Order: sequence, then C-alpha cells, then structure tokens
Amino acid sequence: MVELSKNHGIYFFLIFLLLSLASQLSLARPSKELKPCKHIVLHMHQVIFNGSNSANTTGAAVTSPVGLGHFAFGQVFIFDNPMTKDQNLLSPPAARAQGFYFYHMKTVPSAWMASTLVFNSTEHKGTINVMGSNFIPAKTRYLSVVGGTGDFFMTRGILEIEEDGVVPFVYFRLKMDIKLYECY
Amino acid sequence: MVELSKNHGIYFFLIFLLLSLASQLSLARPSKELKPCKHIVLHMHQVIFNGSNSANTTGAAVTSPVGLGHFAFGQVFIFDNPMTKDQNLLSPPAARAQGFYFYHMKTVPSAWMASTLVFNSTEHKGTINVMGSNFIPAKTRYLSVVGGTGDFFMTRGILEIEEDGVVPFVYFRLKMDIKLYECY
Amino acid sequence: MVELSKNHGIYFFLIFLLLSLASQLSLARPSKELKPCKHIVLHMHQVIFNGSNSANTTGAAVTSPVGLGHFAFGQVFIFDNPMTKDQNLLSPPAARAQGFYFYHMKTVPSAWMASTLVFNSTEHKGTINVMGSNFIPAKTRYLSVVGGTGDFFMTRGILEIEEDGVVPFVYFRLKMDIKLYECY
Repeated sequence: MVELSKNHGIYFFLIFLLLSLASQLSLARPSKELKPCKHIVLHMHQVIFNGSNSANTTGAAVTSPVGLGHFAFGQVFIFDNPMTKDQNLLSPPAARAQGFYFYHMKTVPSAWMASTLVFNSTEHKGTINVMGSNFIPAKTRYLSVVGGTGDFFMTRGILEIEEDGVVPFVYFRLKMDIKLYECY
Repeated sequence: MVELSKNHGIYFFLIFLLLSLASQLSLARPSKELKPCKHIVLHMHQVIFNGSNSANTTGAAVTSPVGLGHFAFGQVFIFDNPMTKDQNLLSPPAARAQGFYFYHMKTVPSAWMASTLVFNSTEHKGTINVMGSNFIPAKTRYLSVVGGTGDFFMTRGILEIEEDGVVPFVYFRLKMDIKLYECY
Repeated sequence: MVELSKNHGIYFFLIFLLLSLASQLSLARPSKELKPCKHIVLHMHQVIFNGSNSANTTGAAVTSPVGLGHFAFGQVFIFDNPMTKDQNLLSPPAARAQGFYFYHMKTVPSAWMASTLVFNSTEHKGTINVMGSNFIPAKTRYLSVVGGTGDFFMTRGILEIEEDGVVPFVYFRLKMDIKLYECY
C-alpha cells in the first residue's frame, strides 16, 4: 500500500504536467474558434499629402499610377499614421502604423500593404508586423500578423480591417482589429 | 488487484493523451523530412504591360532601372496575376497572386518578392502570404510562407518556385509549389 | 511485485516522453528570457550608388523624397549588401542581405525594411526573411524574423540592429544580431 500511494503521487505529477502541456499547446496551435490571447482595437488615420499640407500629412504617394484601369494600379504610398482608441484623429495616439501600400488591381481598388504597428506607451511597448492584401470592396479584410517584438515578442495572428471613414484623396480612417493567437 | 486495474485505466488515458499531444507537436514542429499538411501546386502567369496592352496585362513596372549592371537593378513591378492548375493562361484561375517584386542584383537577374495568394473558390477561401528572394538562375528557389487567413488561418511553410515558360519582356509563367507545414 | 516493477518501467517511459515533449515545447514557445536556439552576429555593409560608382555599389535609391520634412520621407532604396563576420567591408562575405527599405518619418530618420538574408557557405545554406521598422535614433532596433528556408527551415525570431559606422550618403554599416527562437 505504501508503493501504491507513492504511485498516486506520480499520477498527480504526470496529470499536472499533461494539463500544463495541453494548455500551452492550445495557445500554440489555435483553431479558428479559439479566443485570441491578446485583442487590441484601434483606428488608423491617414492624411494624404497634396504637395502643400505637409504639417498634417501622414502619408504620401511615391510613384504615379501606370495607366492600367481607373484604380491607381501601380501607385505606391508610404505612411506613418497615428492609431487612436476612438475615431477622433486628434485623440492621443495609442500606436503608430508605419509602412507602405500600393494599388494593384485594374477593375477595383485594392491595396496590398505591409506595416509595423509601433507601440510606445505605458500600456504596451513593442511592435507588431503585418502584411496582406486589403481588398477594399469587402466589408472586412484579413491580413496576417507575422511577427512582433517587445511586449509582442514573436506574436502571430490576424489583422481585421474595416473602412471607418473617408474623404476621397484627402483622408481615410480604418478600424483595425488586431487578434493575436500566439503570445509568449 | 482492484487498485492495479484502476491503474491500467489511468495508463491508457495517459498514453492516449501523450500520443495525441505528440501528433499535434509533429504538426507544430515539422522537420525537413516531414510531409506537408497541405500541398497545392499552381502555375502563375504574368502578362507585362508595354503601355498599350492594358486589356491582357497583369503586371507593370512602376520604377525604372537605376543603371547598375544589366539586370534591371532597382526596377519594381506590381502585379495581380492569375494562378491556374495547368499551364494554360486561359484556364479558369484557381487563385490570384497579388504583390510586388523588384530586381536587386548587378550581375544576374534576381527578383525579391512579397505576395498574397488569394483563393476564392468552392475549394479554398482565404489567403496565403509569402516573401523571399527569387534567385532566377537557380532551378528551384525557396521563399517563406509567413502567414494566412480563412482556410489557411495562421499557416506557415515553404513556397517552391520554378521557371515554367517565358517570352522576354512580354510574358512569364512560374510553377508554384505551396508546401504548408503548419495547418490549424 | 512483478506487476509493480512493470509499472515502474511504464513510469520511466512516460516521464521520458513528457520530458522530451517539454523540451520541444520550450523551443516552440520561447519566453523573452529563453536563450536562442541559433545565434548569428554579422555586419552588413551598404555602399550607396551616386550615379558613377557602380563597381562598388551595393544599394541605390529608386524613388525621390517627396518633400515632407528633412529625412527623405518616401525615398525607397533597393540593396544587395554583403554581410561579414567582422567589421571589414573587404572580408569574405558570410551572407548577403537582399531587399529594400524606405524612409517614412517627417521629423527623424527611420527606415522600414524587408529583407532576405542569403547564406551560401559551407557553414550555412538557406535564407532568413526579416521585416520591421528600423528607427534609427534608437541604439538597438528590433525587427521580426518571420521565416526561413534550407538550414533555417521555418525559423522565427528577432533581428537586433545597431549602428556600426556611417559616412553620410556614401556608406553605412549595421551590426545585425540574428536571434532565432524556433529551429527545426
């Protein structure tokens, strides 16, 4: 009986180890139904450079459209956009989105994008790197979160983007729903 | 003996848990010898814009070569290319490759590329994001699959590219062998 | 007692399995304190094209600054830079960094970058793909390693960059500390 009660101790140890491994695995290998381990919603604002509004500008075209269709095919923009918790451009930024996008379709507007979301606040310090195709006609567009640094060390997940307001050729705002499924 | 037969039940439970964990790990941490969890082979077609063939064009230069060597160093192309299951440009597309590449070597042609493979068929819905250096002199070139969405949620793997046909300055076709080693 | 000694054999087997799973997990899900599974330090050199120094050039601007601020906002560079083990530009390259960067801030110099580090030596064969924002005023900047091929199959990690020498508009050198936390 002494032997058996020792065994029970080992069982509890093994079961504890298995459960802790299983809980780690469920973070490492999320299914589509799984809840994100971190979830941040921000609104990204871009004020487009027109040649004279440099004080407020956050993004600018660096190439011209090539003349394929009517949706700026080939035009590349570079940006350093504030991201705020509410929809107000003038709210204190919670992060900045830095990167580029370009229009790449002949018959509809669609912007391929790669960007680093830079956090430098008391709440979060670090970066989140994203890339993917932002197909503007779709209500919700899905990009990949491919890595991160600092508080977001090695993270992965999905960036959901929705149109949130636009003044053509002047300003646009995107709601960015950052869902991280791998957190370290 | 009653104790021991209970023990056996626990053994089977533990072994079942271990095997199921091990099978998940083998997906999560593939070795080079492992079989992909998903494998898709497609042919990507690009018809290059020459200024007047806009109807058929799928890709266009947006910058000029800078004059370093004879392999278009510095020229950036943006594309929205159909991908078909066979080599026929006119077959119904199974996906589209949307992104950009640029030539970056002085003495040989080599195209650094980042792209989103967009699937929107009954078979697959979602995107696969890839990036890497496509060193054209090599028979097979290896790029990284760094993320995905929809049916390809959070996927990772390798994109193998082979030359599949070319009409200089007019058209080229690449065989793209998409090997996914992390599937959720 | 025969039954019990059999049990002990099973215990050892289970514990062995658990430990081997745990060691794999610790690689797959590194914490910030964890040691890299691979660590490579190299110095990247860029000689900037001025229109006439093509023989030594390794990088060139492909767009012009757009006129926002004084830090080349909107200027894109493409490069194929040697990476050496010491700080000497003329040492035999251990790898090449191929990719692009662009300036994207109005009030400070900051270069968003994506690149493939190409290894083709007896020591390493394969590629490492990186992306992120290189905020030049910071002593150390952190980018994401988002994938790899060959010897670096599917790798992930952090690229730490430090300024290592500069001759403005002519040459710069970056120390690149490649820390991989997922190795297959």
